[in-house]
Amino acid sequence: MTPTGPRSPGPCPAADEPADGAVDPALSDDAVSRACLTVVAGAGDPVMGALLDLHGASAVWGGLRGGGVLPAPAGVRARAHGERWERWCRRASGLDPDQVLSAAADIGSRLVVPGDPEWPGQLDGLAERRPYALWVRGAHDLRNACLRSVAMVGSRAASAYGLHVAGDLAWALAARSWTCVSGGAYGIDSAAHRGALAGRAPTVAVLACGLDLCYPRGNESLFADIAARGTLVSEHPPGTAPTRHGFLVRNRIIAALTPGTVVVEAGLRSGALNTARHALDLCRVLMAVPGPVTSALSAGCHRLLREWRAACVTDATDVAEQVGHIGDDLRPGGGTALARDALDDLARKVLDSVPARTGAGTATIASAAGLGLDLTLGRLGLLAAGGFIERCASGWRVRPGTADSDGSSVLP
Amino acid sequence: MTPTGPRSPGPCPAADEPADGAVDPALSDDAVSRACLTVVAGAGDPVMGALLDLHGASAVWGGLRGGGVLPAPAGVRARAHGERWERWCRRASGLDPDQVLSAAADIGSRLVVPGDPEWPGQLDGLAERRPYALWVRGAHDLRNACLRSVAMVGSRAASAYGLHVAGDLAWALAARSWTCVSGGAYGIDSAAHRGALAGRAPTVAVLACGLDLCYPRGNESLFADIAARGTLVSEHPPGTAPTRHGFLVRNRIIAALTPGTVVVEAGLRSGALNTARHALDLCRVLMAVPGPVTSALSAGCHRLLREWRAACVTDATDVAEQVGHIGDDLRPGGGTALARDALDDLARKVLDSVPARTGAGTATIASAAGLGLDLTLGRLGLLAAGGFIERCASGWRVRPGTADSDGSSVLP
Repeated sequence: MTPTGPRSPGPCPAADEPADGAVDPALSDDAVSRACLTVVAGAGDPVMGALLDLHGASAVWGGLRGGGVLPAPAGVRARAHGERWERWCRRASGLDPDQVLSAAADIGSRLVVPGDPEWPGQLDGLAERRPYALWVRGAHDLRNACLRSVAMVGSRAASAYGLHVAGDLAWALAARSWTCVSGGAYGIDSAAHRGALAGRAPTVAVLACGLDLCYPRGNESLFADIAARGTLVSEHPPGTAPTRHGFLVRNRIIAALTPGTVVVEAGLRSGALNTARHALDLCRVLMAVPGPVTSALSAGCHRLLREWRAACVTDATDVAEQVGHIGDDLRPGGGTALARDALDDLARKVLDSVPARTGAGTATIASAAGLGLDLTLGRLGLLAAGGFIERCASGWRVRPGTADSDGSSVLP
Repeated sequence: MTPTGPRSPGPCPAADEPADGAVDPALSDDAVSRACLTVVAGAGDPVMGALLDLHGASAVWGGLRGGGVLPAPAGVRARAHGERWERWCRRASGLDPDQVLSAAADIGSRLVVPGDPEWPGQLDGLAERRPYALWVRGAHDLRNACLRSVAMVGSRAASAYGLHVAGDLAWALAARSWTCVSGGAYGIDSAAHRGALAGRAPTVAVLACGLDLCYPRGNESLFADIAARGTLVSEHPPGTAPTRHGFLVRNRIIAALTPGTVVVEAGLRSGALNTARHALDLCRVLMAVPGPVTSALSAGCHRLLREWRAACVTDATDVAEQVGHIGDDLRPGGGTALARDALDDLARKVLDSVPARTGAGTATIASAAGLGLDLTLGRLGLLAAGGFIERCASGWRVRPGTADSDGSSVLP
């Protein structure tokens, strides 16, 4: 179970971003274990999520390979746990981790796991349904691309109106440096990605199949464009075919990656309403674009406006107003988006451990705060989104102009 | 100042409605005074409204004719009061009440004043901006027509989409026995009336000019249709030309006559947003029909959805859901729409004075409750809308099946 598979192409080509992954080209035990778990366990299984929280990925994978049953997490019935464990063991027994990782490397995809600098901390909102790991393909750093992002979803069988609005909205958001996160389907998803790419934004497509597969086939050239100028993401290992269930669990990732979801055009039975439900459950901003009441393809959006209290958005200005506060405050010179008082104890502990000028790596900060890597990473993401800290060559540092973390940052 | 002018054509042709007006064909002093005040004072002047509340119409009119200044109401600055009083006196001096009333009678219009059975009690929500009186023309009783009504407003320069939706919505509401209240303009107003008339609902047009004038001229045949099968209403006496200010103050009546206002299609500068503001100020339900975000003609509706928390409505079912509770409960056999505990002391006093089976006239009830006619009428309107009482041949009675007013109504 030696770590294999170089990360290719590097996580982020931006010169001022520390390519943490490049320092350590080998994957950790934890990462390899998580890669294998994406193969043996169904995506987003909350029992697996709870086991990972409780025992850690290496222990879970080791248990599955060794055949020993790990104790069930609190609240999980013994039978549900037992049945799953048996199934996972069966699948794990024949699995070659090297093969999994090399298959991913062969298609130019990399593995991103909780604790990695590229891991989007906002996925922690999914709790025990957080992906075990993400397979990522593309030139852009996933975490950076999603810091200032909006999910745009809608019907596959969109109208000319819906396609026009999706493309236009993504393009105008790109002009304001907002990235689009969507699926890979025909219709609204594709129109949004095309609009974002036209606006030179690193658009993010979250797929419900392995990154070696192209579904739907007709989007092959779009996916190639996204891989070249944006990011393709999946929680499924290469070779996984899309399923109806896969699309539904995938939607939670689209909602969780962003501070808000816009439903551009959707009928009453559209899967986009499932993404909208995830956004609400995650306390993210839910937005809907209205359309003609004579169009059944907008009936889902109107239901969101009427019954789900979605915000009515008609252009990029409206969308930015709904989700823009934190993003705007991330710009240099802005204040913090959150009051320091609003931080929980752990976040304050992490913030106190971030140096003001020199910067420090995640491991150093975690050790100074006396917290685990995973926990520290999540809080660092929160603090960055809140405008308290920023990335620098050596890791993380307190943002200049941010008061009262240790005082030194506001002194000459 | 003898009462003149027969009411023509009678207030309400419905057989089971008491034609209270017919019992007393002569107009009261109060009514004649109010008729004259619609000529001398600008519509909806809050100083006049406060004077009427304080002194009564006969005293105000007598004062203006006699040249004596009545004391200013509390909160009205002496100068504002003095200037107005002088202007009103000037106009009153040359006015012949007989001429005012006969001019109205000549065009087949009747006068409706607070206290009349046809007076819509919900106008009391306008407080000191309540119309002094209404000039009404048409076969239908105004109060009855508005009991189950929705205001539908929008742009004059509507799109084909807006016209289609307005007509369709009014028609579908008519099928559910909901009346439409609107203005008399081209565009959404006209489309709504036409849809309501096609659905055989007694549509109500509130005009900003005298009922002898037709503005806009092209709506002459529509107004004739409304007079024949619905109701034309104005707070202006015959001969009053429409003004921009007149349209704005008229909008408050459209909003106040109904439990809710639907803005069907409106640009950002549409006068329909003024009606929407009145609806909000009056705590009525505000609804907006969405449209394509690519249409500037729907931008006002989208602003109402986004910033004014208007309910998003797409068809008659949506509208009925928003305003339907009280209306539905008015149907025979329904319970009361309000809990008895929700009534204020005066309303409870009036309810206790309404007999259970035989019924009594407004004056009898007012005297039994020890309250003024006007106050009693307002509370009777509330009690009727709440499902506690109903009209009968001899006036008002407690609705059968309504518990605990005096018990007798629920006993065999």
